[in-house]
Amino acid sequence: MKIGLIGYGYWGPNLARNFNANPDLELAYVCDFSPDRRKVASAMYRQSKVVSDPEELFRDNSLDAIGIATPVSTHFELARRALDSGKDVWLEKPMTEKVEQAEELIDLAEKKNRILHVDHTFVYTGAVEKIKELVDKKELGDLIYYDSTRVNLGLFQQDVDVIWDLAPHDISIMDYLMPFKKVAVSATGSKYYGNGIVPKALLTVYMENNIVGHINVSWVSPVKIRQTLIGGTQKMILYDDNQPSEKIKVYDKGVELFETKEDLYHLKVQYRVGDMWSPKISDHEALSFETRHFVKCLKDRCRPLTDGRAGLEVVKILVASQKSLAGRGVPVELA
Amino acid sequence: MKIGLIGYGYWGPNLARNFNANPDLELAYVCDFSPDRRKVASAMYRQSKVVSDPEELFRDNSLDAIGIATPVSTHFELARRALDSGKDVWLEKPMTEKVEQAEELIDLAEKKNRILHVDHTFVYTGAVEKIKELVDKKELGDLIYYDSTRVNLGLFQQDVDVIWDLAPHDISIMDYLMPFKKVAVSATGSKYYGNGIVPKALLTVYMENNIVGHINVSWVSPVKIRQTLIGGTQKMILYDDNQPSEKIKVYDKGVELFETKEDLYHLKVQYRVGDMWSPKISDHEALSFETRHFVKCLKDRCRPLTDGRAGLEVVKILVASQKSLAGRGVPVELA
Amino acid sequence: MKIGLIGYGYWGPNLARNFNANPDLELAYVCDFSPDRRKVASAMYRQSKVVSDPEELFRDNSLDAIGIATPVSTHFELARRALDSGKDVWLEKPMTEKVEQAEELIDLAEKKNRILHVDHTFVYTGAVEKIKELVDKKELGDLIYYDSTRVNLGLFQQDVDVIWDLAPHDISIMDYLMPFKKVAVSATGSKYYGNGIVPKALLTVYMENNIVGHINVSWVSPVKIRQTLIGGTQKMILYDDNQPSEKIKVYDKGVELFETKEDLYHLKVQYRVGDMWSPKISDHEALSFETRHFVKCLKDRCRPLTDGRAGLEVVKILVASQKSLAGRGVPVELA
Amino acid sequence: MKIGLIGYGYWGPNLARNFNANPDLELAYVCDFSPDRRKVASAMYRQSKVVSDPEELFRDNSLDAIGIATPVSTHFELARRALDSGKDVWLEKPMTEKVEQAEELIDLAEKKNRILHVDHTFVYTGAVEKIKELVDKKELGDLIYYDSTRVNLGLFQQDVDVIWDLAPHDISIMDYLMPFKKVAVSATGSKYYGNGIVPKALLTVYMENNIVGHINVSWVSPVKIRQTLIGGTQKMILYDDNQPSEKIKVYDKGVELFETKEDLYHLKVQYRVGDMWSPKISDHEALSFETRHFVKCLKDRCRPLTDGRAGLEVVKILVASQKSLAGRGVPVELA
Repeated sequence: MKIGLIGYGYWGPNLARNFNANPDLELAYVCDFSPDRRKVASAMYRQSKVVSDPEELFRDNSLDAIGIATPVSTHFELARRALDSGKDVWLEKPMTEKVEQAEELIDLAEKKNRILHVDHTFVYTGAVEKIKELVDKKELGDLIYYDSTRVNLGLFQQDVDVIWDLAPHDISIMDYLMPFKKVAVSATGSKYYGNGIVPKALLTVYMENNIVGHINVSWVSPVKIRQTLIGGTQKMILYDDNQPSEKIKVYDKGVELFETKEDLYHLKVQYRVGDMWSPKISDHEALSFETRHFVKCLKDRCRPLTDGRAGLEVVKILVASQKSLAGRGVPVELA
Repeated sequence: MKIGLIGYGYWGPNLARNFNANPDLELAYVCDFSPDRRKVASAMYRQSKVVSDPEELFRDNSLDAIGIATPVSTHFELARRALDSGKDVWLEKPMTEKVEQAEELIDLAEKKNRILHVDHTFVYTGAVEKIKELVDKKELGDLIYYDSTRVNLGLFQQDVDVIWDLAPHDISIMDYLMPFKKVAVSATGSKYYGNGIVPKALLTVYMENNIVGHINVSWVSPVKIRQTLIGGTQKMILYDDNQPSEKIKVYDKGVELFETKEDLYHLKVQYRVGDMWSPKISDHEALSFETRHFVKCLKDRCRPLTDGRAGLEVVKILVASQKSLAGRGVPVELA
Repeated sequence: MKIGLIGYGYWGPNLARNFNANPDLELAYVCDFSPDRRKVASAMYRQSKVVSDPEELFRDNSLDAIGIATPVSTHFELARRALDSGKDVWLEKPMTEKVEQAEELIDLAEKKNRILHVDHTFVYTGAVEKIKELVDKKELGDLIYYDSTRVNLGLFQQDVDVIWDLAPHDISIMDYLMPFKKVAVSATGSKYYGNGIVPKALLTVYMENNIVGHINVSWVSPVKIRQTLIGGTQKMILYDDNQPSEKIKVYDKGVELFETKEDLYHLKVQYRVGDMWSPKISDHEALSFETRHFVKCLKDRCRPLTDGRAGLEVVKILVASQKSLAGRGVPVELA
Repeated sequence: MKIGLIGYGYWGPNLARNFNANPDLELAYVCDFSPDRRKVASAMYRQSKVVSDPEELFRDNSLDAIGIATPVSTHFELARRALDSGKDVWLEKPMTEKVEQAEELIDLAEKKNRILHVDHTFVYTGAVEKIKELVDKKELGDLIYYDSTRVNLGLFQQDVDVIWDLAPHDISIMDYLMPFKKVAVSATGSKYYGNGIVPKALLTVYMENNIVGHINVSWVSPVKIRQTLIGGTQKMILYDDNQPSEKIKVYDKGVELFETKEDLYHLKVQYRVGDMWSPKISDHEALSFETRHFVKCLKDRCRPLTDGRAGLEVVKILVASQKSLAGRGVPVELA
């Protein structure tokens, strides 16, 4: 199958490398409007056509799929054109800027019977795969919270707040593990540096069944922290992506609630503390695994794990967070 | 000087031990309404009167000061009676349940010319003392944020939310380091266990000058985390109270903002990355240090570092947080 | 039962506290030749006789047992007198300075039918107890090595090398877990500071079955490290005593040896890598547990877990190490 | 300048990549006797001649230098031929199997006026560079010890003991930081698995001035540890190569020795404890930096930092260790 890539900036080269390495894909095009980036791409992929105009890709009827790794503001238009021209699409996260755009792409993909894959890379890591497996086997009991800290120094962007950059990782992991109805969002943060951009924010996502997600993202932390706690009634997980090994620790700790005899109105909380267990996890490159999954969906015409709906869910929460952020945490309902 | 202690439950024994060890104090009374606790106190402090009725302390004119380590719901009444009877007061945190109560105690102490000390223990640790010193010397540049995670498994309480138990520590440290006007509070969390108590919450405190405080507290984390980031324009601090040594790390990292020539409306963010430095900090017991400070205030009739005003500040934020929590993060203005 | 304690210096107070707290023991005497230490002991244990002459204890026929926590050079004489006078004995580690002395004490205890308990405290920790349990259940497969690092800054002693201070901990743990015949010892180190004392040393203990023990001890490390690796053919353990929780991690990792077909003389090594597991361990105070064990032995007239033989094993290895150290690592056979 | 590479196995590809990326070098040849490896090399470096016979490189008069990354048993012969044919040489560590071989290569390089560079990669890391700078500025005071743990699971080799694989790293770092006369070596270890290979060993290197080096290497540790302590009279360093940042921590801790007045024969040890400081270190790839250094030596005809003498020093200690290992730690003098 032939694939073309639009956008060879920060993330694009990783896609190109993985598309190229996959035995079922031929990287037929790399497209970027910067002459410098095209020069780099040409040196790396001599067999691919390196072009500046995405229309060349849309026009080529021999092309099966298109990857899009451009700034988010261009996602909708490029993905729309790609689907329209009959290509399957691999789209970077966040999927679009607006909820309506994501919905329109989903509809279009359906109508055209095209694959619409959104690149939520973390879902394809060995760590998240293992957590999902434990969650699905009910090892944690009932889920009660997701709490993630994803902070570091760097990659300050001029045009979007930190939530658009870092929070999609956590929202997509959370939605994958906790596919529950999201009810409302509250987000706080502040504009430290006078340029109107929020480099540090806290998100709270209220879900059905009293489940809550907390996400702390920052570009202004002196240290890099990647810590996620996932709480269940039976067990709890610490997922620390900074650890070279032992990324996941499963704690046999839980909280139980008893009605005490002496007073039926009183509930007694009791803790259970046991062993910790760190399962071996696969250390495959997530993107390579994700590429194989994408190829399989192309062949079997099936729905990717991270399809348009998954992308839409992230966009909905980002858009609501942005609104809540402007209102200093005022809760925004998710219809 | 003679001091009496009301409340010999969870925290009281620590006060008794430190009052007793201080060469300028005589622990004249221990008062608790539980016969069991009185028995324990009697065995430990044979020279002290162990009583069940606090009125005995208020009535004793030879008594100089009273420590109060009872549940928060009793703080106001006991402290009021103690001040009224002419005693200096050491009051546990949080100071009171209501803002008006804290204000009334402050007024009463002023009127009666009594010392009103609130036990914000962390302010007296070597670590916070060192951070305060660095902040005051402007080593961090302008402060931009406070971000703390204080989570663990345990001590679930039946009658108050986790914010009343764990957040006072961070609010008092934050207020000590950042004595700025607090503008508004947003708090989120949820009632996982059906007993109406919030065991996990996020607080955001908006301060003047765009400074923001984020506080994450939980009784339902499988691991104990005590991590505080304090960000400045010049340097940033990681304060990890779990570390036996190297509790404070000062990072020579900062964020600078430049207006770029090509576009006056554009601001460019630049990072500076340098050495890390972990200063030696005193490892005195905070409570012993705090007791000495209290005694000094009693002698010199001066205002404690953590006086009624400091206590009031914490109560204001807790009360506002509780209100915001009920409204799913809706911001509550601090008048 | 009545017990007396000789030596109230660095470690003695811990024994006094635990003897006193045990419901079956009455701390009848504390003996120390320093007036200052006697004053401290008197204030703490008002009901005990505080004396300067150990003969008072030996003479008292109502006394059942004697604890000895004095410098090692006095152990033999005091323990001999105590056993001779018909008392059961709790003796600090290392048991004696010389192998012959340890042997004589063992013989004497046997002859007099007295309990001779050597205080190898670590054997009574929850962590070592758990490791022993796993080893005995053959969870690790065949044991292949013990490798421990026990270094920190401090407690430099004027009269003995670091091996007499820190290595007994590891030797006693190792001997408890690996009760195999010790064959030879090699030890290296050096006299950095011109006062003839070795503050940093490496020990290698060769055991039967090709098992090897490596012990690294130091008083001149800038950081405190307490790391022990215990290797087996099936599983391996990392025991880190610095960790507040997760002191023991059991790795499902092993090394297997295969004869390959293509060459019968060639052996192929293969690694197996699996999960890690950190069992919950009891966090009782080791000394309290050890005191209970001692009392039980006194009552039931049975042999303590850490009896004279265990103490002798440690002395043998220390004496051989000292000799090897003087010969720059020359191996010293253990008869 | 034109360079050829002999050996494209485990380490060779890293050399090829760095030689190729250096603007002053042209990778003219890659030589390997395995057809499979030649195929891989051909695909990667289309402009290079890929050959099976090293003689082709020796014969080519246009070739300036040769890199040798083959098993250690072939180093001597290949390097001798390369020098003989007038090429400058980059030789993998350990330099040779025997001391005499290393000496002969040094003599030959001198006679032929050729550069003989030994690849002690760690010497070119930002971390070791920074430590060397601190040592040379006398920041640590007088050096007293080097103590390194380099253990992990894996890379068990059939034909050499672990000391030939892992210890060269530490010996070369130690010799670079502490260019003192090495006096004697003691080494211990054991053959756990019956194939005659030692997978776990301890080395002690005695140097002049009472300085001691301790090196713990293992292929049978369940966890990867890379911890080096470097002790000085003024300061001490912890160098942890596993840390992604803060690889070096400099402790303002030292040990001082005083003659006390009351007894001139008594020396009192005193500790000094102060701040810790973690300098920013360069995170360049060591091999890229080393290649630049090699090229500079080729151009300027100067002696590399890690020349034949440095290589010889490592071989001497390895050979002596092997002998000591066979004698269970018996010290082997270094002439």
